Amino acid sequence: MTQHTDHPLERMVFFSDAVFAIAITLLVIEIHVPEIPRTAADGAYWQALAHLMPHLVGYLISFSVIGAFWMGHHRAFALASRYSPRVLGWNLALLGTIAFMPFLTAFMSEYAGARVPASLYWGWMVLTAFLNLRVNTLATGEEMRAPTTTDDDARSIRARGLGTICASCCALLLAQLVPFYAPLAMGTIPLWRRMFFRVLRRPAAVARTAP
Amino acid sequence: MTQHTDHPLERMVFFSDAVFAIAITLLVIEIHVPEIPRTAADGAYWQALAHLMPHLVGYLISFSVIGAFWMGHHRAFALASRYSPRVLGWNLALLGTIAFMPFLTAFMSEYAGARVPASLYWGWMVLTAFLNLRVNTLATGEEMRAPTTTDDDARSIRARGLGTICASCCALLLAQLVPFYAPLAMGTIPLWRRMFFRVLRRPAAVARTAP
Amino acid sequence: MTQHTDHPLERMVFFSDAVFAIAITLLVIEIHVPEIPRTAADGAYWQALAHLMPHLVGYLISFSVIGAFWMGHHRAFALASRYSPRVLGWNLALLGTIAFMPFLTAFMSEYAGARVPASLYWGWMVLTAFLNLRVNTLATGEEMRAPTTTDDDARSIRARGLGTICASCCALLLAQLVPFYAPLAMGTIPLWRRMFFRVLRRPAAVARTAP
Amino acid sequence: MTQHTDHPLERMVFFSDAVFAIAITLLVIEIHVPEIPRTAADGAYWQALAHLMPHLVGYLISFSVIGAFWMGHHRAFALASRYSPRVLGWNLALLGTIAFMPFLTAFMSEYAGARVPASLYWGWMVLTAFLNLRVNTLATGEEMRAPTTTDDDARSIRARGLGTICASCCALLLAQLVPFYAPLAMGTIPLWRRMFFRVLRRPAAVARTAP
Repeated sequence: MTQHTDHPLERMVFFSDAVFAIAITLLVIEIHVPEIPRTAADGAYWQALAHLMPHLVGYLISFSVIGAFWMGHHRAFALASRYSPRVLGWNLALLGTIAFMPFLTAFMSEYAGARVPASLYWGWMVLTAFLNLRVNTLATGEEMRAPTTTDDDARSIRARGLGTICASCCALLLAQLVPFYAPLAMGTIPLWRRMFFRVLRRPAAVARTAP
Repeated sequence: MTQHTDHPLERMVFFSDAVFAIAITLLVIEIHVPEIPRTAADGAYWQALAHLMPHLVGYLISFSVIGAFWMGHHRAFALASRYSPRVLGWNLALLGTIAFMPFLTAFMSEYAGARVPASLYWGWMVLTAFLNLRVNTLATGEEMRAPTTTDDDARSIRARGLGTICASCCALLLAQLVPFYAPLAMGTIPLWRRMFFRVLRRPAAVARTAP
Repeated sequence: MTQHTDHPLERMVFFSDAVFAIAITLLVIEIHVPEIPRTAADGAYWQALAHLMPHLVGYLISFSVIGAFWMGHHRAFALASRYSPRVLGWNLALLGTIAFMPFLTAFMSEYAGARVPASLYWGWMVLTAFLNLRVNTLATGEEMRAPTTTDDDARSIRARGLGTICASCCALLLAQLVPFYAPLAMGTIPLWRRMFFRVLRRPAAVARTAP
Repeated sequence: MTQHTDHPLERMVFFSDAVFAIAITLLVIEIHVPEIPRTAADGAYWQALAHLMPHLVGYLISFSVIGAFWMGHHRAFALASRYSPRVLGWNLALLGTIAFMPFLTAFMSEYAGARVPASLYWGWMVLTAFLNLRVNTLATGEEMRAPTTTDDDARSIRARGLGTICASCCALLLAQLVPFYAPLAMGTIPLWRRMFFRVLRRPAAVARTAP
C-alpha cells in the first residue's frame, strides 16, 4: 500500500501525545475532596489533608512516571522521520498501559502500604517499560530513524529503555518487602542507564544488539 | 465557498484524533477502586480484583475496539489529501458513536453475561462499523484521495470496513445466544477482510462498486 | 510585539479543537450505569434504559450542538490565515461556555421537562451563540482573513452566526412554555441562515455591516 | 545527541496545549447536579443553583486562571523557534501544577470562605507562577528565541511573569484575612506588569537580569 511518508508518523505521534496528556491529567479526578464539618477549625482541614497524603503522593509519583515515559517517547520520536506500520500496534499497546495507570494509582493510593496494589502497580510498570523499550527501539531503528540520527543516539535510547525496565523490576521486588518504599527504586534509573550505555557502546555488544 | 485545500482536512483529522484519544482514555474512569477492609490479608485483595475482572476485560475489549477503529481511520486518511465538506457530518456521527462507548462498556461490564447490555454494545458496534465504512470510503474516494493513492488502496480500505461490519453482526448474533463469548466474533475480522478484498478485486465487482 | 504570522493562529485553533473535543467526549460520563438486580429478566433492562432516555436524548442534543459549534469554528477558521491577538480573549470565552455544557446537559437531563434547567441550558446557548458570532466574524474579518477569502464567504459565516442566535432565542422562548420541546427550535437554523444571507447580500446591508 | 530543530519544540508545545485544555475542561466535572424533588416549583431550582454558586464562581476563577496561564504560554512560545532540552522538565512541572488545579478548585469551592483551602489554592498559584516565569523566560531566552524576537519582547514576557507572581502573593496574603475576596487580588496583575516592564527597561536592570 502506498503511504505518504511524513503525515502518518506525525498523526501517530499526535495521537500518542493526546493519550499521554489525558492519562496524566485524569490522575487528579481520583483525588476526592475530603468531607469536613463546615464549622471546623483550621486544624481539622490540615488533618483531612494529612489523611489525603497517600493520594497526593500517588499523584506525584504517577505524574512523574507518565511524564518520564512521555519524555522518553518524545526523545525517541524526535530521532525518527519515517513511518513504519509495524510500530502502530506496539505503540497502541504502550498507550493502553499508560491509559490504565489512573486506576492503578487510585488503587495503590487507597490502600497505601498494602502489598497487592503496590505489586500490581510496579508489575504493570515492568510491562509498560518493556513496551516502551520496544516502541522506542523501533522509532530509532533502521526503518524509521532520521538520516541525521546516529548509532550512538539509538544506543542512548536503548540504554534508557533498559534502565527503566531494571528500575521497575527493583521497585516490584521492593514492593514485596516494603511496599511503601517501592517508588524509591525509580531513583536508580540514571545508574542503570549509564551502565547500559557503557555496555552497549562496547564493540561486541554493538554487534550483538544491532537489528 | 473558497476553501484552503490542506488545512481543513488536517484540522478535521486532528479533532477526530482528539475524540478517539479521549474516549479511549476515559474508559478507565468507569473502573472503580474496590472496597476492601484495611486489615485484610493479601487474599482479600486478589478476590476483589477477581470480582473486578469483567470491568478489566471490558476495558481491554473496548480499548482494542476503539484502537482498531482509530487505526482504520488513520490508515484511510493517510491516503487522502484533499478536503471535502461532505465528510464532516459523517465523521462527526462516527465520533459520536465512539464517544458513547465508555458508557456502553461500563453497562456491559457491570452486567457481564446479560443479554441486553451485550446486544446494545454489539448493535452499537454494527452502527459504528457502518459509519466507519462510510467515512473511510469517502476519504479514499475520487474527491479526497491523494494523487498517489491507487484503486487497490481504496479497495483494501473498503474490504476492511465491510469485514468489520460482518464481524460486528456476528458478535451481535452471538450476544443473543452466549453474551459472554460475543467478543470472540471480532477475531473473524481478518477472514472477512480477505474475502471481501478478493471479491472487490474481481473486475465485475470493481465496476459495480466504483463510485 | 513581533509575532510569527502562522504558528500562533494554528496553536489557538489547536487548543480550541482540544477543548471542543474534550467537552463533547465528557458528555458521556454524566450518563450513569443504571442499577438493575442481577437476576432480572430482559424486560427490566429495557425498562432501566427507558428511564435513562432523557440522558440519552440530552447526550444526542449536546453532542449535536457542540459538534455544530465546532463545525462553524472549523468553517470560519478555514477562511483565516493571519493571527490577531484580539481574537484570543473572545475565543477563550467561547471555549468557557462550551466547556460548561456537560454540566448544563446533565442538569437538564436529570430534570427533563422542568422549566429552570431548560431555560438555563437554552439561555446559555444564546450566550454561546453571541460569542460564536463574535469569534467567527473576527476570523473572517479584514485583519485575519486569508487573501483568497471573499466578502461573500464572510457574509455566509455571519449569516450562520446570526441564524444560530435566532434559533437559540426561539428555543429559550419555547423552554418557557414547553421545556420538553425546546430542542426542536434548533431545526429552524437553516431558515434563519438563508434569510440572513439574503439580507446581508443586499448592497445597503453590505455597506452597513462592513467592518 | 542530534536533535531536529523544529519538531521537538512543536510537539512539546502541543503536549502542553493538550494538558491545559484537559485541565480547563475537567473543571466542570467537579460541579455536581443538585438534588431537587421532582415536584418542586421553579423557586426550588433557583435556590439549588444559589447553593451551587461557590462552585460556579470557582469554575469561573479557575477557568480564567488556567486560561491566563495558557495565554502566557502561547505568547511566550510564539517568540521561540528553537528547542532546548532544558525546558522539558520545567515545562512538565508547570503542567503538573496546572493539572492539579481541578482538585484545588473543588476543595476551595466546597468550603468557600474557609482559610485553609483558599490558602492552599493561592499558595499553589504562587508556585505555578514561579514555574510559569521560569518556562516563559527559557522560551524567550538566548537559547530558544526566534531570530525576530527582540530584547523588548523578552522583557515584556518577564514582566508579565513577575506580575503574576506578585498578584498571587497578594491573593495568598488576602486569603489569610478575607479568604472570600482573595481572587480580587488577581486584578492587580496589569499594575504589577506595567511596573516591572518599566523597571526591566532601565539600562541597569537590563544588564542585571540579562541571561
